[in-house]
Parts: sequence; C-alpha cells; structure tokens
Amino acid sequence: MDLEFLRSLVQPNTTKILLCSLDGLGGLPRPETGRSELETARIPNLHALATRSACGLLRHVGFGITPGSGPGHLGLFGYDPLRYPVGRGVLEALGIDLELKPGDVAARGNFCTVDAQGRITDRRAGRISTETCMRLVERLRRIQVTGAELILESVKEHRFVLVLRGPGLSGRLSETDPQSLGVAPLPVRPLDPEAERTAAMVNGFVDAARPLLEGSTPANMVLLRGFDQQPTLPLFPQTFGLRAAAIAAYPMYRGLARLVGMEVLKTGTTFADEIATLREHWEAYDFFFLHFKDTDKAGEDGDFEAKVRALEQFDARLPDLLGLRPDVLAISGDHATPSVLKGHGWQPVPALISSAYCGADPVSRFTERDCCGGSLGVLPAQELIPLVMANALRFTKYGA
Amino acid sequence: MDLEFLRSLVQPNTTKILLCSLDGLGGLPRPETGRSELETARIPNLHALATRSACGLLRHVGFGITPGSGPGHLGLFGYDPLRYPVGRGVLEALGIDLELKPGDVAARGNFCTVDAQGRITDRRAGRISTETCMRLVERLRRIQVTGAELILESVKEHRFVLVLRGPGLSGRLSETDPQSLGVAPLPVRPLDPEAERTAAMVNGFVDAARPLLEGSTPANMVLLRGFDQQPTLPLFPQTFGLRAAAIAAYPMYRGLARLVGMEVLKTGTTFADEIATLREHWEAYDFFFLHFKDTDKAGEDGDFEAKVRALEQFDARLPDLLGLRPDVLAISGDHATPSVLKGHGWQPVPALISSAYCGADPVSRFTERDCCGGSLGVLPAQELIPLVMANALRFTKYGA
Repeated sequence: MDLEFLRSLVQPNTTKILLCSLDGLGGLPRPETGRSELETARIPNLHALATRSACGLLRHVGFGITPGSGPGHLGLFGYDPLRYPVGRGVLEALGIDLELKPGDVAARGNFCTVDAQGRITDRRAGRISTETCMRLVERLRRIQVTGAELILESVKEHRFVLVLRGPGLSGRLSETDPQSLGVAPLPVRPLDPEAERTAAMVNGFVDAARPLLEGSTPANMVLLRGFDQQPTLPLFPQTFGLRAAAIAAYPMYRGLARLVGMEVLKTGTTFADEIATLREHWEAYDFFFLHFKDTDKAGEDGDFEAKVRALEQFDARLPDLLGLRPDVLAISGDHATPSVLKGHGWQPVPALISSAYCGADPVSRFTERDCCGGSLGVLPAQELIPLVMANALRFTKYGA
Repeated sequence: MDLEFLRSLVQPNTTKILLCSLDGLGGLPRPETGRSELETARIPNLHALATRSACGLLRHVGFGITPGSGPGHLGLFGYDPLRYPVGRGVLEALGIDLELKPGDVAARGNFCTVDAQGRITDRRAGRISTETCMRLVERLRRIQVTGAELILESVKEHRFVLVLRGPGLSGRLSETDPQSLGVAPLPVRPLDPEAERTAAMVNGFVDAARPLLEGSTPANMVLLRGFDQQPTLPLFPQTFGLRAAAIAAYPMYRGLARLVGMEVLKTGTTFADEIATLREHWEAYDFFFLHFKDTDKAGEDGDFEAKVRALEQFDARLPDLLGLRPDVLAISGDHATPSVLKGHGWQPVPALISSAYCGADPVSRFTERDCCGGSLGVLPAQELIPLVMANALRFTKYGA
C-alpha cells in the first residue's frame, strides 16, 4: 500500500513492537527426508508461539523473484522493493557500514590488471589480498577532483567502494568495466545530460588513478560499475510514527535500516550481544528491528544441518525476547535461503504475528508447509508492517 | 509483473519446461454429490503429482471475471489480459488458423438477410449451411479495394472473417451491425482520425458486396463487427529467453500461441497425437505449451460425466509427460468450465508446479478444494510463468 496513505492512518500509542528477521529463513525439503530445515529442527518455542499467532507466508518482491538482501529487507520494512530500487553501489557501501548522505553517488570498484597497452588481462587482479587492497586504496585517497569529495573504502580482496559527495551529482553513469578481456577500461559516459559533470569527475578520478597504480601489478588499474545515487525514501520513523531502532551484528543490515531512517544501535558480534542491546534499549524505542544472520549463512553454504542448528539456537533465545513482553512480535525473514539451493530462493517465507489481537488460525507449527494454512495467507512482504501496526493499535479507522 | 522487468532477470539455462493447459479445468460440485468433476474423477497420477508439487488456485483476469479463451491463455503465458487486450476480430481469425501479420485489421462477418428496402430481416441469414457460406465467401473474394489486400475466410454457418492487410491501417472502426431488425446496415465510421482511410476501404468492400450477393437470399448482405488490429505484444520467447513451442490440436490455441511468438508445431487431432509431437520435438525447445481440449468441451455441454472422463483420460497420459523428465511441469487451465454452468466460469482454477525446488505444501489432491491450502495461494494467472521460470532456475537474483 502507498506509504503516504498508511502515514495518514497512524495514531499515537505506547505499544512496543519487535520485528525479528531470520535471514534466509525459508527452506526446502531435503530429498532424503522430505522435510525442510524448519520441519527438521527442534523448535518448540517457535511452534508454541505459532500456535497463538496469526501465520502466513511472505512473498518478497513478486512471484518467482529471488530477492537480494536489499530488496528483501526493504519489503520487511514496508517498502515495495520495485517502487524503491536500491542500486548495487549503494548496497556495497551499506555493506561496509559506510554512512551515505542523500545525494551521494556510490560505485563498486575492482582492482584489475592491464598490459602495457592498457588492455585488461584480469578483471580481478588475481584476487589480491585484502591487505594489498587496503594499501592501494590508501594510495588512491590522494586523488582530488573539483566539485566533489571522494570517499574510498576497501572491501574484500580486489573490491573497493568509491563514493562521490557534493551538490548536483547524478548516478546516471555508464560503467568503466567492459566485462571482457583484451580491451581497455571504458570512459564513463553520462546517461542523462545532468550527469555530465559527475561523469567528468569520475573520469578525472580514473585518469589520476592510472599513474598512481603503475608498477603495482597485478593491481595496476581500476574498474568501476554499479553507479548509483543514494535513493530518497520516505523515512520509516516518520511514516509509521515510531521511534525505531535497528540491532544487527552485520553491517549490510545496519546500512539498510539506516537507509530508511532507523536509529542503528551499537551492538556486538553475536546474537546474544544483539539481545543484550535490545534489553538495554527496550524502554527508549517503540519499534525494534532485530536481525539474525546464521540461518542465511548456513543456507548459503548448503549446510542443512548448520541451518537446522541455527534455527534451534534462535528458538532457544525466543523466551528472552518474549520475556520483554512486546505488544507485537513479528517473526519472518528477508527471503528463503534453502540449503539445497546454496543461495537465495524465490520461495515464500513463513511469517507470524503475535499480539493480543492477532486472532486464531489453525497453524500450530512454524514451518513452510504449516504456514500455508494460516490466516495471513500468502502475502506481499511489504504488507507485514501494516498488519504489525494494526496489531499494535497504531492505525486508526479508514473512513467513518 | 512488468514483462520488461522480468526480461531483465532472465539468465540462460538448459532446463526444460512443460506447461499443460487443461482447457476449462476448474469445476463446481454437482448438487447431488457435493463433489466437483476433479473430486469425482479417478486421477491417481494427478493426486500423486500434487503431493510433491507446489499447489494453488489461479485467478484469471480479476476477481469475478469470466475469461474467454483469449484472455485465459494470455494469462497462462504471463500476460496481464487487461493490459494486453485482444479483440474479437483477431480472436476469430486466430480461431480458424488464419495467420495474421502485425498491422492487420480483422473483423468478424455475418451473412444476413435484407428486404427490398435494404432493411435487415435476419441478422444470421437463417443460419445458412457452412457450404453455402464457403461458396458466398468465394464470390466475395473477387472484391478489391485500393490500399489494402482483402483476405476472406469462411467460418461456421453464417460467419466469416475479413482481414485487411496493408500499410497504415487502423482497427478503430464502428460496426456495421446495428444489432436490431428493420433498419439498414450502418456504414463504418472512423473512431479516430487516422482510421478514415481504413473506414473508406471497408465501406468500399460492403458497397461491392451488396450487388454480388443480390439474389442469394437469405444471405443477401453482410454485417461486420469487432474490428480490431493485431496487437503488438512483447514476444514470449524474447521476454523469457526460451525457445518456445506450442502443441494444440485446435486452431484457436495455436493462434494464441502464435500471437505471442511461440513456434506452432504441426500435430494431429487427438491428445495422443499432441504427446507424440511433444516427444518428437522434446530436444529442440526449452518450453512447451501443451493444450488439452476435452475438459472444456464436456463442461460447455454441461456433461459432468464426460468432463470426469476427460480428466481421467488426461490422468492416464500423465506418466507419458513425466517420462520426458521436464525440469518444471506446470498444470492448470485457462479458466473454469463448470458442467453445472454449461459455460466458462470465474471460479479459480487449480494449478500445480512440480520441480526439484518447488517446496512442500500440505496439498495431496489436485482439486479445487485442496488447492486452496497450497503454498502458491490464490494468485493471478499471469504470475504462474514467473514462478515457472524461477523453478527452472532461469531467473537471476533481484538486487544484491
């Protein structure tokens, strides 16, 4: 639904909302047993909670679409990911906790190898070490261009992020990466007339990088792609009238929460740390987004048993969350990561909403198969938040 | 979802997809037993397949809308039938296997009876025999107009199809059929300024037809309606990156598949012929649309028992289809044709998708009632193909 419309329904309340995203929650049956990760795990607390919750399946982005973490979480936050696209460069910056400002243009960079004629011989510079990458990024930080501040951060191995900050920038730029070997990197072209100045700045950066990297073979040149401007989204706290906080041990999810205006709370590296942070700040906010990463990691590794264990570990922590007595507790995920796929999937993701007003449905187990029969049905992910708001008695009636 | 967006997600693969349309699949319970055709039929193979498939109900066009064969199949092919309307004249041409070209204007023709003053006394010319119709159409083929080629084909009884082929035509024309008796046929009027030339051509045809038919009472005049230009649709093979073939014993379904750019394979008149054609061409295509007509015919006749038998006949052939080992097998229909309605209905139509990654749901019988509880939910018909593409691992991730 339109966020402006939802905003018009918001009414004040003191209820507390906890939204847990189990990353990559949805799974698929393992062929040997015919049971999915959720169906295999011993998760008595989740099953008991599902019994007294409204259950269903979230469909992210659209039917058959496999979401990345960006669109997946935007959906959980109430945003239609097709209406609010977030580009690759911005996601890359968010993924290393780089704080972007409105108007910033971000790109993903690769170090690459070129021969004496300037033709690319390796698009990833032999996957140099992260240490080498950091050293070379430090060298590139000397570069200055007129009209914008340049921000450079190393990522992993041959990857880095370039951010341009300044007035009047545009992300409508072609890529320098020709995506093939034996040819020189391309100059950046403006895809819109108003991107001409930004294109000139980026080309200035690349021209300055070339001599600085000469002799640092294999990483003797840079490629830039996925130019994108920080999108301006309606902000979550303003839209829903919530003091909203995000708790995530991984930078990507902190970045996505920051993108929609949530306050990102400092936390540790484990889920136990996250829960401690939640407890510590419980009084200060109306809404908490709590991220649990291990389910996705195990699924990406194709490690069915590890994903089962991750679910059991979350289940063991669930009483801690219930102990805080949230008025509304919603549990779902940003996409499926079935172990048998070893990656993200398009399959719908189990979801539950627990509150004093969530109603009764026949679901008594928190699994893909059982949630099919829940009162939420199969619903677009971005419709979860309106339901959460309603259960928190934070939406007024529409129409007299 | 937008077809351009879907196209941007396509990734190459070698997986094979089989989409079976059981025409008019959905039914209604017979009052005496409370069981629908699917619930009455002995269809063990379909039930077993449903058990290991993702199931749901397809809603064609919109809630409460009864689709014709055109919109019904466009939905199955991934097109929103409200966004891509196909007019009556074009459907009539497709229904007799007339190959239209982009820009062609088609109309449905009736022979009618007029009195000495030219006033209509029978809009269907006493339903003349198909042989008489063929003979009169042959006579009308002598007519020539400036600026377009005229193509005339007889249909059944008093019906024929008129196609104009040439540059700069328009289908925005009023009808000559006044839909009442005692008045003369109307001249064609352009509904848009750019249709003026085409209107003049059609009026020229009608003026030339009048003397040619004089004396051939009761079929001594023609009525034209449903003018429509061949729509330009995004093509299915290009949109989804699939070498796509259609196998249908009935011309209407071949025509609809041709309209979206599928290759139409020559086949015989029975479903056994269709399966033989499928087997013969299995290696040459990525995607097959296979049409099964008998369910609809029986439903239209109001013959509950015949529809039950047709379902059982399809079920008996299902092992042949499974024997080809498609990576994705989808089975559904273009609309309901409940025997108790003796015609098309608006009721949602059972659908299943079977693949290695379709996931588990509680459905173990392929019936209207059981498919309610499936993991696909109740979904717009045009969302079936994106799901099929995902299950064939032919869509890449959206967003990082």
